[in-house]
Amino acid sequence: MKKAVILLSGGLDSATTLRIAQSEGYECCAISFDYAQRHKAELTAAKNIAKKAGVVEHKIVDLNLRLFGGSSLTDDNLTVPTGSDIDHSQIPSTYVPARNTIFLSVALGYAEVLAATDIFIGVTAVDYSGYPDCRPEFIAAFENMANLATKIGVEGHRIKIHTPLIALSKAEIIQAGTQLGVAYQDTISCYQADEQGRACGQCDSCLLRAQGFAQAGIKDVTQYVI
Amino acid sequence: MKKAVILLSGGLDSATTLRIAQSEGYECCAISFDYAQRHKAELTAAKNIAKKAGVVEHKIVDLNLRLFGGSSLTDDNLTVPTGSDIDHSQIPSTYVPARNTIFLSVALGYAEVLAATDIFIGVTAVDYSGYPDCRPEFIAAFENMANLATKIGVEGHRIKIHTPLIALSKAEIIQAGTQLGVAYQDTISCYQADEQGRACGQCDSCLLRAQGFAQAGIKDVTQYVI
Repeated sequence: MKKAVILLSGGLDSATTLRIAQSEGYECCAISFDYAQRHKAELTAAKNIAKKAGVVEHKIVDLNLRLFGGSSLTDDNLTVPTGSDIDHSQIPSTYVPARNTIFLSVALGYAEVLAATDIFIGVTAVDYSGYPDCRPEFIAAFENMANLATKIGVEGHRIKIHTPLIALSKAEIIQAGTQLGVAYQDTISCYQADEQGRACGQCDSCLLRAQGFAQAGIKDVTQYVI
Repeated sequence: MKKAVILLSGGLDSATTLRIAQSEGYECCAISFDYAQRHKAELTAAKNIAKKAGVVEHKIVDLNLRLFGGSSLTDDNLTVPTGSDIDHSQIPSTYVPARNTIFLSVALGYAEVLAATDIFIGVTAVDYSGYPDCRPEFIAAFENMANLATKIGVEGHRIKIHTPLIALSKAEIIQAGTQLGVAYQDTISCYQADEQGRACGQCDSCLLRAQGFAQAGIKDVTQYVI
């Protein structure tokens, strides 16, 4: 079996991506980040998801992005937009500067140590918050860079960044994941979940998720605070 | 003054790069990494260099790359090649998978928070250990990716990765730094310095450094163990 590294946040998209990678025959090694995000519930979720999926190993990387902040997810002085405060005409404050670049870079190092050339990330550019580092052109540029950056790349192996969700709507992601047996009650999408992992129901991530379940015609099993 | 982020390892090259950036008129913010490298002496050196240079701020990021190892700098089961064991025909075990990609990615996030578009890194592709992530083609690919990855990039600002040393020999770097007042006795290049910061004198980094001082005709002020 070919090994792959999977970025696993504990959310809906990455949990689905993990199951897709496994369905494609990859032996999966998961990596998650404690980046001092607003809540630890998603890391608890990631551990549970990884365990249930039977990954080969699951690395949790400590990397405190509050050291420089710059996002409402890493600076408590900024608020997570909810409801009518969500403005889809601009990149929102929940954007974490260079987050996917940083996460993919660490995943790249991990993959190289495993002699794995396949990295999976659950980005989507359909029902999303407009983050630049979720777009296909970013992924293509990262992949190109990764092949020049690494020993494995210069030795002629081809590193591939897999983005199986990139062109799917949230409803399509949920439908695909449901068919693969993803237990969505184990996932947390909310930007500001409470300690018990209950979702606020009002942030952009909650709204996209709820809309996805509704459009997919699948019962939304998310636990909300209210 | 324009702000710039400088990757500062505590070694000869990054200390020179910092002074070059300052001489070009940048207000410098330094970033260093405690990545569980073999010794902490280079971080002590980095702090001292940053302080003496009067940087605006100096961030030290904890990121334990021993979590997956894969290099003689991050796995004590591997040995740092010395003397005749150094084989320049291949990428050596001191190569740390994706290290410069990871460091530049975190620097990119830091730069974006500062609204800085300039990042300096002291890579050189002349007297070096053959690492893929020191080559101009890697830097160009990273810069291209960075402009697609970030809010600052998609808003039309141009992120630039500056590599003022990339085409210089070690002797030329030392000559340039000496003219700019770099105190090379404050820098540590050795892969396996002791706790007092004394160099082994036998690893590739020590040999390149010693050769650089000799070729530059400048007294080598490095403190060696023996």
